[in-house]
Amino acid sequence: MCRWLVYIGEKILLSDILITPQHSLLNQSLPNRALNTPDVKCSDYYNEKEHKKRNHNTNGDGFGVAWYTHIKHLERAHCFKSISPAWNDQNLVSISEGIESDVVFAHVRASSGSPISLQNCHPFKWDKYIFMHNGAIFNFSKVKKKIISMVSDEIFLNIQGNTDSEYAFALFLNVLNPSLKSRSFTAIELKDALAELIQIIMRLTGLEGPSSLNFAVSDGYTVVCSRFRNSLKSDPPTLYCAEGQCLQLIEIESPNPQSACFQSRVNKLTQKEMVINRGPYNKFAIVASEPLSFHQEDWFLIPRNHLLVLTHKKERRSVANVSCTLSESDNCEDSISIDSFPIEWDDSLMSPELDLEGH
Amino acid sequence: MCRWLVYIGEKILLSDILITPQHSLLNQSLPNRALNTPDVKCSDYYNEKEHKKRNHNTNGDGFGVAWYTHIKHLERAHCFKSISPAWNDQNLVSISEGIESDVVFAHVRASSGSPISLQNCHPFKWDKYIFMHNGAIFNFSKVKKKIISMVSDEIFLNIQGNTDSEYAFALFLNVLNPSLKSRSFTAIELKDALAELIQIIMRLTGLEGPSSLNFAVSDGYTVVCSRFRNSLKSDPPTLYCAEGQCLQLIEIESPNPQSACFQSRVNKLTQKEMVINRGPYNKFAIVASEPLSFHQEDWFLIPRNHLLVLTHKKERRSVANVSCTLSESDNCEDSISIDSFPIEWDDSLMSPELDLEGH
Amino acid sequence: MCRWLVYIGEKILLSDILITPQHSLLNQSLPNRALNTPDVKCSDYYNEKEHKKRNHNTNGDGFGVAWYTHIKHLERAHCFKSISPAWNDQNLVSISEGIESDVVFAHVRASSGSPISLQNCHPFKWDKYIFMHNGAIFNFSKVKKKIISMVSDEIFLNIQGNTDSEYAFALFLNVLNPSLKSRSFTAIELKDALAELIQIIMRLTGLEGPSSLNFAVSDGYTVVCSRFRNSLKSDPPTLYCAEGQCLQLIEIESPNPQSACFQSRVNKLTQKEMVINRGPYNKFAIVASEPLSFHQEDWFLIPRNHLLVLTHKKERRSVANVSCTLSESDNCEDSISIDSFPIEWDDSLMSPELDLEGH
Amino acid sequence: MCRWLVYIGEKILLSDILITPQHSLLNQSLPNRALNTPDVKCSDYYNEKEHKKRNHNTNGDGFGVAWYTHIKHLERAHCFKSISPAWNDQNLVSISEGIESDVVFAHVRASSGSPISLQNCHPFKWDKYIFMHNGAIFNFSKVKKKIISMVSDEIFLNIQGNTDSEYAFALFLNVLNPSLKSRSFTAIELKDALAELIQIIMRLTGLEGPSSLNFAVSDGYTVVCSRFRNSLKSDPPTLYCAEGQCLQLIEIESPNPQSACFQSRVNKLTQKEMVINRGPYNKFAIVASEPLSFHQEDWFLIPRNHLLVLTHKKERRSVANVSCTLSESDNCEDSISIDSFPIEWDDSLMSPELDLEGH
Repeated sequence: MCRWLVYIGEKILLSDILITPQHSLLNQSLPNRALNTPDVKCSDYYNEKEHKKRNHNTNGDGFGVAWYTHIKHLERAHCFKSISPAWNDQNLVSISEGIESDVVFAHVRASSGSPISLQNCHPFKWDKYIFMHNGAIFNFSKVKKKIISMVSDEIFLNIQGNTDSEYAFALFLNVLNPSLKSRSFTAIELKDALAELIQIIMRLTGLEGPSSLNFAVSDGYTVVCSRFRNSLKSDPPTLYCAEGQCLQLIEIESPNPQSACFQSRVNKLTQKEMVINRGPYNKFAIVASEPLSFHQEDWFLIPRNHLLVLTHKKERRSVANVSCTLSESDNCEDSISIDSFPIEWDDSLMSPELDLEGH
Repeated sequence: MCRWLVYIGEKILLSDILITPQHSLLNQSLPNRALNTPDVKCSDYYNEKEHKKRNHNTNGDGFGVAWYTHIKHLERAHCFKSISPAWNDQNLVSISEGIESDVVFAHVRASSGSPISLQNCHPFKWDKYIFMHNGAIFNFSKVKKKIISMVSDEIFLNIQGNTDSEYAFALFLNVLNPSLKSRSFTAIELKDALAELIQIIMRLTGLEGPSSLNFAVSDGYTVVCSRFRNSLKSDPPTLYCAEGQCLQLIEIESPNPQSACFQSRVNKLTQKEMVINRGPYNKFAIVASEPLSFHQEDWFLIPRNHLLVLTHKKERRSVANVSCTLSESDNCEDSISIDSFPIEWDDSLMSPELDLEGH
Repeated sequence: MCRWLVYIGEKILLSDILITPQHSLLNQSLPNRALNTPDVKCSDYYNEKEHKKRNHNTNGDGFGVAWYTHIKHLERAHCFKSISPAWNDQNLVSISEGIESDVVFAHVRASSGSPISLQNCHPFKWDKYIFMHNGAIFNFSKVKKKIISMVSDEIFLNIQGNTDSEYAFALFLNVLNPSLKSRSFTAIELKDALAELIQIIMRLTGLEGPSSLNFAVSDGYTVVCSRFRNSLKSDPPTLYCAEGQCLQLIEIESPNPQSACFQSRVNKLTQKEMVINRGPYNKFAIVASEPLSFHQEDWFLIPRNHLLVLTHKKERRSVANVSCTLSESDNCEDSISIDSFPIEWDDSLMSPELDLEGH
Repeated sequence: MCRWLVYIGEKILLSDILITPQHSLLNQSLPNRALNTPDVKCSDYYNEKEHKKRNHNTNGDGFGVAWYTHIKHLERAHCFKSISPAWNDQNLVSISEGIESDVVFAHVRASSGSPISLQNCHPFKWDKYIFMHNGAIFNFSKVKKKIISMVSDEIFLNIQGNTDSEYAFALFLNVLNPSLKSRSFTAIELKDALAELIQIIMRLTGLEGPSSLNFAVSDGYTVVCSRFRNSLKSDPPTLYCAEGQCLQLIEIESPNPQSACFQSRVNKLTQKEMVINRGPYNKFAIVASEPLSFHQEDWFLIPRNHLLVLTHKKERRSVANVSCTLSESDNCEDSISIDSFPIEWDDSLMSPELDLEGH
């Protein structure tokens, strides 16, 4: 289990989302911190013990940051990864303060068993596609060989580590195949591919037990995120979204005491309060395992078993419903029936378009 | 602030003290664990807040292990250090299971500010001497230049990192000088040198504020440890000692749940209960920031502001009193008067000799 | 392509083979050094360009050391690996000087494409078995999926990295299956399993092109090594063997100038000359990609396409012939016909037993 | 001894100077490569053996990259450092392709003795100042304490490693003191400070023996470089400069064979030929230990014992003469007399202004 963050919108300094905010992703990695997970108790499936198990308070098994450039109209993804805990890495703060981008992925890892290695750090990258995951595929070891047999040789040989997450990315790329490099995909196609990925994993393991599948994927233009867990007894890990017209970082007198000692050690930066102003035309969106601020009203908890699609400029559809009808009659408490797993595009959950052109 | 451990006695597999025990040093490094610090509330100076501040529950800023060999009657110290958290290092368990030694030092670091680097990991080594520290020298930055001017060029040039601990080691070596390489020192001489080190630090900073000086030093034959803090308001970090004739590691059904997930990830070893049997002739002693077991009766808390001397075979004197008489009249709450700082050898605290020859 | 070394015999300090000798494995890793490969030109297949290609003079992509302990009659293998070049690692020298063992494997890596990661460093370990490789499987990417389908789930899931070498180890373990953990194997069984591994790889890729398969494997008691390449145009990487009754390291005045600067930086040790005295009963053997000394007479070049079996105490059979009859009619210059690949035990090449009991 | 590179001019993608060119800085780090040092034999002091000693062909002891941003008119320097050899680092290529800047420093290290650690990797950074060095201060260990006594406490406490280079930076900052943070400095002031630094080092060690002092320093607006060695027997390490209006990278058929294997492993990029077009108004300048291309005519060797000053937009003065008159009467072959060491601004060597505004 891990924590991750996606930013899409006007160019932002990476440190303004990764480092500076009071509850930045760096803070979300720290040992002994308190969780910031508003609204989780409203769920019918809330279970305190499961909630703690699924939302780690220490995420120190390496990290990764990815960002896009669009030089000469070419989407290119760039990664910086490290096996150090984010709070101890001696490059992260300096690099984050020196890069601006309009699509940013970042991930702090809490390994559920696979080794601490660069190859197992998220985000994963293939050509212009990046992908990350918070959660775990149930009994992954039992389906690993099966997944290998399902994907093309080219995609298989690109797998470098041994996490379930990277194999999920391989399956995702395989869904997009065979035209992967020859053309681009629409937001709808990417959303459908992520939904298809979840369905494939359900077909492979869904009857066996619950998987948590909080995925994020991008091509540099569209971002698709999922919050999913096939369980009637517990929720997926948390995932929040905020969008706005203007993002402000305001000096505060007393920093978050939980992280004061680490923060001062790492970067000597004053922690700042993140304030998000909404307007008629939103210019950015942030999706994160936990809100980056303590302003609850700025963040909404993405409903369980939903997809979120975010794109630059047009056709932004924020929420598409991936409803899973669970078989009530099933005695096995955590299983679901696979065939009743339609993907429905829920227009009532749509939000206004994200407009980056300005008005 | 850190956690450390010393073993002296019959040859032991390093993993039997570092990894396997329920509350091994590896466990003492873990995030979110509970402290195991019996008897601390008996002190007149106990203060819960200060106690927590001074006894970290996460020690993830690198670690180090040192052990001695005596091949061809030559004491040689060997080190393995890493900037990974001990619980994530992929060599520590395998190496520890493959080495036996009769004098072992180990240290898990929680940096109080200096960088995470191999050069700042304890133990420090110079020729056959090894040294480690839990604590901090008050306002070290103000006396760093002064310390440099005090030590010989040879010792100064051997300093590789920038911790107060390594500079304390330099001062210690300087006290032993100039005959450092040409001869060996008796246990008494090493004890006097460590006491002298504490006095030097007191002279440099004692009137300014409190320093915590839990040191351990060895030449491969004698070990001297200190538990010291010049404060009337708070205690030094904890330091415990156990000695015995026989050390057993017993399978247990339910491992310490605090560390179960890390333990299983790191090494898949069953945690074991450490049982220490005393006899008429003790064959080993362990000094550690926290007991390695939950058998309180096996461990005694070393009194504040005391030295402990442990040697192979003979002249073992377990406790030498380094009493510091604090000036009652001083308004500054944490200062002590330096001149009333005699070192008294307290025979009433002596324990029977540690006998490694067997009977 | 890499360099590796095996030691079997009376207990030895690891540094006495890895670090101290003039042409130690550490030296064999250094940039810009000269190769020490006597006798290679005697081969009918010698080709200078291919020789240089196959015997790297820089091996800086990480390293690994494995050694055995036999505490309570239990063979246990221990590993230390690092992604630093051996010459830059700050633990290697100190650790090597602090460990003695009777079976040692060590490997300095020159990656032929897979990432620099701990998981890709040799030796590989499974239970009490260790394995390492110098060479490459031809077109490994084309048979990787096939290999996965061939090995048991348990063995497959133990694969952590992505080198052809680790997959070869998986195939080797699979040959020993299914009784892998329940019993031990004789030297003959281990030799047969390594020969079978080479045959499997030949069946998978042998008609496609040449593979270099210099393997070493051990269970802590027996060591089996191979020097193999299915080519009529070039030789396998070099592999030498020395055995003796007594190993001496003698002070020399002028160290090997090639490595003087590195050597002094790493360890300040005087390089020593390794002298091997043979006697009626040999007490140790060393197999290495290059001789550790410049005394050519102490080392013999293992013939191409041969196996070497070394065991403690008894039934030591030094050379078993793995002859490969090459199809003369084949136009493809580097292919061989697979069916004419019998393994013949060549008694004429046997050497006297290695006797560790003393006389 | 190391290799370094400075870029100043219009914004450039970091990979376009660090990675892509045929003889990029990455290539200059590789083992077993050939030096690319045109014109060196024209010097009266050329000495082949000394030349090789002073210009390493392997620079694998870590590396560092620094770049500036000017967000909200604030010069800020950012660093990425690693202890891996540049050719093995798994972040360098991806990061370099994702960052553009107008002032870039990069350094590949070949340690002359101090440990391989992040703290010892160049460039060094203090506030907005960055600094790097190729060379060594003669008998640095003898003057290290003296230097500490010379610099202010604030500057001393900022020293994190133990290279002579970082201590030289401390001396440089001390020359700029005490107004360091309160104001900016002109190009002339920075040049004078670097000249003063060289003079201070000469006063400390100049009579003892030769130091190589190829420094580069910047405040994000001006760059000052030196090529200096106080010796009548040998030259400083090489240092070249190219300037132009337009920089092109052209596809080539056959990459530099020396680095083909590494290059393909690291980044799968096609190496490109760097072509520099001069115009009436130069828009960028590159200073590097070796030319990045094999077009000798694009690069001039900076004369020994000279400074080079490069600034954005105005008052660019390319070469200021730091002449050192050597005492002919001195028998000690490598010493110089200190008092005859005036800094002369040589107008004849000035080049036209570097103009970034365009015309």
